[in-house]
Amino acid sequence: MNLETCLKKMQLVGVLAFATVDGQGAPQIRNISAIHYEADALYFFTARGKDFCRELQADGRVQILAYTKYKEMIRLSGKAYAVDAGAQIKWRDIIFEEQPYLANVYPGDTRDIGIIFCIDEGEVEYFNLGVKPIFRETYRLGKLTETAKTGNHKGYHITDACIGCGTCVQHCPQSCISCVEDAETGNTHFSIRQEHCLHCGACYEHCPVGAVKRYESE
Amino acid sequence: MNLETCLKKMQLVGVLAFATVDGQGAPQIRNISAIHYEADALYFFTARGKDFCRELQADGRVQILAYTKYKEMIRLSGKAYAVDAGAQIKWRDIIFEEQPYLANVYPGDTRDIGIIFCIDEGEVEYFNLGVKPIFRETYRLGKLTETAKTGNHKGYHITDACIGCGTCVQHCPQSCISCVEDAETGNTHFSIRQEHCLHCGACYEHCPVGAVKRYESE
Repeated sequence: MNLETCLKKMQLVGVLAFATVDGQGAPQIRNISAIHYEADALYFFTARGKDFCRELQADGRVQILAYTKYKEMIRLSGKAYAVDAGAQIKWRDIIFEEQPYLANVYPGDTRDIGIIFCIDEGEVEYFNLGVKPIFRETYRLGKLTETAKTGNHKGYHITDACIGCGTCVQHCPQSCISCVEDAETGNTHFSIRQEHCLHCGACYEHCPVGAVKRYESE
Repeated sequence: MNLETCLKKMQLVGVLAFATVDGQGAPQIRNISAIHYEADALYFFTARGKDFCRELQADGRVQILAYTKYKEMIRLSGKAYAVDAGAQIKWRDIIFEEQPYLANVYPGDTRDIGIIFCIDEGEVEYFNLGVKPIFRETYRLGKLTETAKTGNHKGYHITDACIGCGTCVQHCPQSCISCVEDAETGNTHFSIRQEHCLHCGACYEHCPVGAVKRYESE
């Protein structure tokens, strides 16, 4: 999997869920299909009078979720900003051209109430529940694209405190914990294959010596 | 439309988007299909180790979004709480019975890492983009169900300052502004048919006398 395919899949799903946070710090979610995709950015249309627009202008943080028929979740986290006044009409008309039904919702000149936002920096998480074990990977969108895959900063990892008892292995729903042998000492310890981890926390709860730690990225 | 049909439609859509807010106040969204529906509540399964669980325990506010094939958006806003310890297994096993694929993700006893949350108070918004003009309505979930439809506290309304010029009518994408004649004075003023309003703000922006106001519920 890769960033390009993820964006393509988002585009094919078409109607995506957009989450923001309102003035009370509460989650707000709605579907948006008025989206145009570029290789490293997406542009979307909403109306200036909507709460969604206010939330984007006040905070800007947004998560966008697509779910495919193949049990894949694709999630883009980023910050949206309104594009420059001079470029508003260009992107708006591209979106209306690509999604003709929008002209039913905003006929004629009424599309003038629209505003175009862009996301060109962010992170795309791919999570596939249709394979066993499950598979996840994270990609950078934007300037950092060249790093391709980012490190996994969520979930759990097994520290050097591991005594190699294997209790975690028995409780892992995805069998994604492997035994690793130290070439020099011959000691064994366990390691989570992050790309197959549900982040369910079973290893963390069952480890008898507290050797499993949560990544504290947030 | 009504609450019962909305919940039924959510159930038929199956895989829903759940939005929460994380420790940084950022939006978080993911798909959940491990849901059991009752007439006035829904129960869902997640794992105790997931960020999602933490967000629910720390804040609890959640919005759940379903999009149907008929261009309907159904959105439930409420507060989720973990069900009593004594009822956890009952609801968990009902959910695993209804959604057999969960046993692939959490085989055997590994489902023990699960936790069941409930939402039994909230608001359900129905928004249909597949009719013209669009149609929206809001229902109460829970103790207040008997009130059936709640008032609309979002969007815009036209105040008594209206001079009856009709400028708003020309700019409304959904033609949802009607002329109302006062029976006594014979004066005309305009009124938004709330159930057909996009909340786009075009009337608000174009009113020459500032007679259109935003509902300030948040």
